[in-house]
Amino acid sequence: MSDSRFDKGLKLLNEIDGEAGQNVIDSLQDICPDLARYTIEFPFGDIYARTELDLKSREIATVAALTALGHCAPQLKVHLNAALNVGCSEQALKEVILQMAVYAGFPAALNGMFAFKEVLAERSA
Amino acid sequence: MSDSRFDKGLKLLNEIDGEAGQNVIDSLQDICPDLARYTIEFPFGDIYARTELDLKSREIATVAALTALGHCAPQLKVHLNAALNVGCSEQALKEVILQMAVYAGFPAALNGMFAFKEVLAERSA
Amino acid sequence: MSDSRFDKGLKLLNEIDGEAGQNVIDSLQDICPDLARYTIEFPFGDIYARTELDLKSREIATVAALTALGHCAPQLKVHLNAALNVGCSEQALKEVILQMAVYAGFPAALNGMFAFKEVLAERSA
Amino acid sequence: MSDSRFDKGLKLLNEIDGEAGQNVIDSLQDICPDLARYTIEFPFGDIYARTELDLKSREIATVAALTALGHCAPQLKVHLNAALNVGCSEQALKEVILQMAVYAGFPAALNGMFAFKEVLAERSA
Amino acid sequence: MSDSRFDKGLKLLNEIDGEAGQNVIDSLQDICPDLARYTIEFPFGDIYARTELDLKSREIATVAALTALGHCAPQLKVHLNAALNVGCSEQALKEVILQMAVYAGFPAALNGMFAFKEVLAERSA
Amino acid sequence: MSDSRFDKGLKLLNEIDGEAGQNVIDSLQDICPDLARYTIEFPFGDIYARTELDLKSREIATVAALTALGHCAPQLKVHLNAALNVGCSEQALKEVILQMAVYAGFPAALNGMFAFKEVLAERSA
Repeated sequence: MSDSRFDKGLKLLNEIDGEAGQNVIDSLQDICPDLARYTIEFPFGDIYARTELDLKSREIATVAALTALGHCAPQLKVHLNAALNVGCSEQALKEVILQMAVYAGFPAALNGMFAFKEVLAERSA
Repeated sequence: MSDSRFDKGLKLLNEIDGEAGQNVIDSLQDICPDLARYTIEFPFGDIYARTELDLKSREIATVAALTALGHCAPQLKVHLNAALNVGCSEQALKEVILQMAVYAGFPAALNGMFAFKEVLAERSA
Repeated sequence: MSDSRFDKGLKLLNEIDGEAGQNVIDSLQDICPDLARYTIEFPFGDIYARTELDLKSREIATVAALTALGHCAPQLKVHLNAALNVGCSEQALKEVILQMAVYAGFPAALNGMFAFKEVLAERSA
Repeated sequence: MSDSRFDKGLKLLNEIDGEAGQNVIDSLQDICPDLARYTIEFPFGDIYARTELDLKSREIATVAALTALGHCAPQLKVHLNAALNVGCSEQALKEVILQMAVYAGFPAALNGMFAFKEVLAERSA
Repeated sequence: MSDSRFDKGLKLLNEIDGEAGQNVIDSLQDICPDLARYTIEFPFGDIYARTELDLKSREIATVAALTALGHCAPQLKVHLNAALNVGCSEQALKEVILQMAVYAGFPAALNGMFAFKEVLAERSA
Repeated sequence: MSDSRFDKGLKLLNEIDGEAGQNVIDSLQDICPDLARYTIEFPFGDIYARTELDLKSREIATVAALTALGHCAPQLKVHLNAALNVGCSEQALKEVILQMAVYAGFPAALNGMFAFKEVLAERSA
């Protein structure tokens, strides 16, 4: 039922994204709490909760897509953190971003790498 | 030296993409052989040849990015084949495409899935 | 509960998109039935079922977005049909497509208009 | 004649966008006044002046497109203001942005909603 | 006055794009003649008619943009023809397409080059 | 050999982009020096070093593409500087940006023009 998608999604969101995910949810409460709810239910309760692909591979796919799309810097930073949280190595994430130069061009790869530089600086602070 | 990037890249392209990659290269010979050469040297000779990330993870990243970008159906099909060739399971690739509904919308995911349907049909033919 | 999202979504999909929507769902059954299920549950069961915006406005928004994005011709055609089905006039849809020349450029508007020409031809056939 | 397109467009721009539109025009005067003139003549003098679609529907289409494209935050904010100015309700605009999660992914919808949060805060200030 | 923008634009469209441009205009007559008119007036009557940049440079810019955007194959082919018509060399156009690998990725460059291959084949037929 | 691609590329990068290019390279040293190396080798050592197209035409193509793509403001600013450095006139660059209203919409052209305004202000400071 709907509650369990939300509960399962919220648990997973907090495990994966920690504070960053919760901040996104919190900042939607006064403007559109339903978008917060859907963001928990569908991406996390439905998709990330599927067991047919491990979370490290899921985050590699997400980092690749968000780097390539190029217009989602805040979400890319959330998922670079998430990727580190679920066990992707720094080196693996650099490789994924670097590889996007091939598929989306050097500007997308450069902006992705600078986003990762910010994430690493924030984590070590 | 330049020759070794090309040689290393061509070897890897043929291992990963098989006939599909070679077809792309061949079809460029009469229009712009330098683009064929660069396509071997930089993506394959430089990037895919790096050992810091396994080829299965690289193909997951590429399938994710090409599904999300949405305007590269021929290259997506080449890389869905490549992903199967390097050992990604059908189920894992379906998960990656499915997940792109979250980041690039349902149309991108649907078009990616239909491309995969074509790839699987061609391989079983 | 989950069943009701699916049931509500399927009912709405069939009302709005008719045969075209069902064809998309059917064509996913052998490759990824879960994507079919999610396509019914989230876009239709969750979003289009919301009563805070009328279906004509929803379809105007969707036609605008798919014309502007430019890489989703099959989905644009489905939604041009859907827009006509829920009562948008031909003239209104032409205006929306035309207006996209301002926001996404003339090629996107031209390709959107040619998609609409195909839709109208198919409906009158 | 050309003057009337400009005059008609400027009148409409000021009615719809108020100060925000005029600011864009003003800020182009020292760099490219012709772009300011075209921005008045074509989008407003030609397109928005057409009477075949009401202004509320036009702004819904524009908000949908700019949210989906994802790289036009300043223009999205101008048009969220414009949409409120021509009578779209806050709730309707939230629905349009929310719906873009389906067609352009959750990051685009989230960034659109945060832009709307800024617009509402600026208007209530 | 409006007529002169149209007349000037149509003359220029026919000079630059020849039959291909006229075909686009013709194919809009039964669906949205106003889009045909705007396509002549703004891009050609207003922009290409400006004398501050030569037509060869304008077509280089257009070929670059359409190759990079990736979702406008028909318009790219029209402008590759146009570029040849106004005196760009085959080699220069190949260089522009090739260069887009840097800014929009290899798939965009490959698809652009294959579009050019089709254009050259059609012209020599 | 590889060294000469790097050396040739670095020389060209410094000639074209001056400080701005070097800053990008420098800022990558602590996060991913290989991306810096590839950014010198492929775009500059391989592509811009080709003599089949003059540097002014190359920068026009790049400014057009980055304006149209819309998500690469930092790289657009670097290349607007580069374009001026290799001899493109201010007027020519304004024309290229303006023309992108036709192919990528007015928001992309407006954002490109405002980026150019910043570049000109920084250069005159």
